[in-house]
Amino acid sequence: MVKQYIHQHQERFLQELFELLRLPSVSADSRHKGDVRKTAELVRQRIQEAGADTAELVETNGHPIVFGEKRVDPAAPTVLVYGHYDVQPPDPLERWHTPPFEPTVREGKIYARGACDDKGQFYMHIKAFELLMKQQALTCNVKFMIEGEEEVGSDNLPLFVKTHRDKLKADVILISDTALISLDQPSITVGLRGLSYVEVEVTGANRDLHSGVYGGAVANPINVLAKMIASLHDENGRITIPGFYDRVAELSAAERQALNNAPFDLAAYKKELGIAEVIGEKGYTTLERTGIRPTLDCNGIWGGYTGEGAKTVLPSKAYAKISMRLVPDQQPAEITELFTKHFISLAPPSVRVKVTPHHGGEPAVTPTTSKAYKAAEEAFKEVWGKAPIPTRDGGSIPIVALFKKELGLDTVLMGFGLDSDALHSPNEHYGIANFLRGIETIATFYKHFAK
Amino acid sequence: MVKQYIHQHQERFLQELFELLRLPSVSADSRHKGDVRKTAELVRQRIQEAGADTAELVETNGHPIVFGEKRVDPAAPTVLVYGHYDVQPPDPLERWHTPPFEPTVREGKIYARGACDDKGQFYMHIKAFELLMKQQALTCNVKFMIEGEEEVGSDNLPLFVKTHRDKLKADVILISDTALISLDQPSITVGLRGLSYVEVEVTGANRDLHSGVYGGAVANPINVLAKMIASLHDENGRITIPGFYDRVAELSAAERQALNNAPFDLAAYKKELGIAEVIGEKGYTTLERTGIRPTLDCNGIWGGYTGEGAKTVLPSKAYAKISMRLVPDQQPAEITELFTKHFISLAPPSVRVKVTPHHGGEPAVTPTTSKAYKAAEEAFKEVWGKAPIPTRDGGSIPIVALFKKELGLDTVLMGFGLDSDALHSPNEHYGIANFLRGIETIATFYKHFAK
Repeated sequence: MVKQYIHQHQERFLQELFELLRLPSVSADSRHKGDVRKTAELVRQRIQEAGADTAELVETNGHPIVFGEKRVDPAAPTVLVYGHYDVQPPDPLERWHTPPFEPTVREGKIYARGACDDKGQFYMHIKAFELLMKQQALTCNVKFMIEGEEEVGSDNLPLFVKTHRDKLKADVILISDTALISLDQPSITVGLRGLSYVEVEVTGANRDLHSGVYGGAVANPINVLAKMIASLHDENGRITIPGFYDRVAELSAAERQALNNAPFDLAAYKKELGIAEVIGEKGYTTLERTGIRPTLDCNGIWGGYTGEGAKTVLPSKAYAKISMRLVPDQQPAEITELFTKHFISLAPPSVRVKVTPHHGGEPAVTPTTSKAYKAAEEAFKEVWGKAPIPTRDGGSIPIVALFKKELGLDTVLMGFGLDSDALHSPNEHYGIANFLRGIETIATFYKHFAK
Repeated sequence: MVKQYIHQHQERFLQELFELLRLPSVSADSRHKGDVRKTAELVRQRIQEAGADTAELVETNGHPIVFGEKRVDPAAPTVLVYGHYDVQPPDPLERWHTPPFEPTVREGKIYARGACDDKGQFYMHIKAFELLMKQQALTCNVKFMIEGEEEVGSDNLPLFVKTHRDKLKADVILISDTALISLDQPSITVGLRGLSYVEVEVTGANRDLHSGVYGGAVANPINVLAKMIASLHDENGRITIPGFYDRVAELSAAERQALNNAPFDLAAYKKELGIAEVIGEKGYTTLERTGIRPTLDCNGIWGGYTGEGAKTVLPSKAYAKISMRLVPDQQPAEITELFTKHFISLAPPSVRVKVTPHHGGEPAVTPTTSKAYKAAEEAFKEVWGKAPIPTRDGGSIPIVALFKKELGLDTVLMGFGLDSDALHSPNEHYGIANFLRGIETIATFYKHFAK
């Protein structure tokens, strides 16, 4: 029945998703403020049409949150679906093979910014809900909370959650914003890294100088910044910020073994990325480095002359965006403070340094013993013919920790993407098979969860 | 007589210079190709109007060279004036207080891109020539060679010089493209640093990645580039490229003493630049660091996300523009090769590195014993009331070495700018007093040189 409905309506499902993907809801870019709102409005409308009792935009100090609800039975369990309708900026634009906001299907995949992260994924929940409503098979109460600021740190979500505890009352939170191992091997993410994100500014002289006249005598902020960044890792790939590892929860040998049992082909991984060698913290495998170890990456750097040709400038300023992925029990606020203190201490007297925190998110681990996790496991078995493997994911969904803390709710991360979907990159895509099988799995989850 | 003419015509001189400064002759930017040509045409016209027998545009593979000539007497000495009518790019635009191509006078200074480097300086020669012609006082033959590619490496000048040896025959080359110590203490630059300029590209994965999913396991080209750049200097501020210092001519204690006798106020220098501390190679003074020692500076760096807000990207590529200022007897081609070899050797197996040479220029030292230098010295004494101090300049004018090699001619660097003129920076300016006194000094030079 479920399969049949999806088969009959899949063309419409895709067209509806494409309509959503055409809206450039880039939350980081203030020029797209109107597009972000249009997207929220369309999501609200779709939830309403799918059969919700109510669906509304809740205003915040930033972009609005879409909230929708369907109550079927006060005695039935309640599922709270979280997702985000905002997307990452599409740059660098020139590396997209087709325009980021003109969804295009190639080899069974939808190419568009947000195809997987997270429009394609949260939309599965709306379609699974529609299906259950149409088939009069909805056995749980459902709430939707689809926000528009996930890609910029969900700054306004905590206040919304704190002030709407009753509205958000539920038995479990369901999020599809993570990846599976493969279409042949389903998995459920049970651990997420946290995030601390800062922007740094190094200032030398009070103006750009001629590198011939002043070079060698006046500090070059690019050279200084490079040195400061270089010193943030030691020769073993460990981060040198004092206190950085103090709260890192070490896993037992058995836990590490279980993690490394997940299928992983290093040669294929390197080939797919076009790299000759992986890197990382000494003493850990690639799966561990991206799953259970904290990391530090420069996400952007700029300064001086970056145009065509040559300009012999000794710039006044250089900048970098630096993020740290955190693991339990690191605290983003504390790590940001440790970073700031350390980074400022690295600056020689010839420059001035400013550190601006962008946003953070706490790492999280979700239980594999809950009723909801078991229901998800059953749903995967039924639809995919295989039990899902629990995995640790390198990305961050900071709101998982927030929901636990503020609402006391555990999350099940039922994600249907793939690591190769190019999230946050040019040519982001999402498999149509993933999309359709995701809808089926979600609909099946409700059946098991209501039992 | 000279003073009087300048006084009578100074308003027109300035208006003519402003017309030249309004043309955005940015040679590095192909969008300005038409403006560069318009500038060449205007310079040609001004040389013609000032009284030249001939003035023409000589086509090259890049921007044209303006050549003009006035023969007064085959027995008289010939002065070849070199200058450049192209300018540096004006970025960062937002830091200019008035538009770069709208010359504005504030506190006796002309603010505009090229005001000092080099439109304001070479134009003094055309006005000194006009003055001598009008007063029937020109006692030397004069040739003008004003090129349009100095700021991008003078790529087409060597061929022009080699194929026009007869046309360029002269007794001395006169260039105004350097700075004085101050309006109270004239100086003549007798040493110039050379230049090697490269662009480097570091590539990690074959596409931008999500820093959460891949961070910590796949090399980040920004982090790697930072480390590579950081390693180019040791803790004593020395450049670590093997062989880099092999050809550096060490000065005698007496020569170093003479150099350090030039007036220099470190406290004022730091205050003017807004820095708490100078930097540089251990064991050398600031004047030595910028005058007689080679240096390495990043002139630009970029990679990853540099827009508003936060994007957790692990970029595929990072870039930097790096230049080295060279001193006698370092060879730019050799240094570029040493850099390239060393830089590639620094790359870990997790990335690929590409080095693209931009352009180079040889360092040069000019004699203080020549008839031309003596004439310049006399001219300064007469106009400024003080003998000029010979100084070493940190900037590069690669064509000085070219002229010596190809034409066998020494250069006199009669520059009238100031180090604080913000060359290559926002708010470049040139003192009106420097401009007018420069015209007077040049006109006076001809009198002494013809003796």
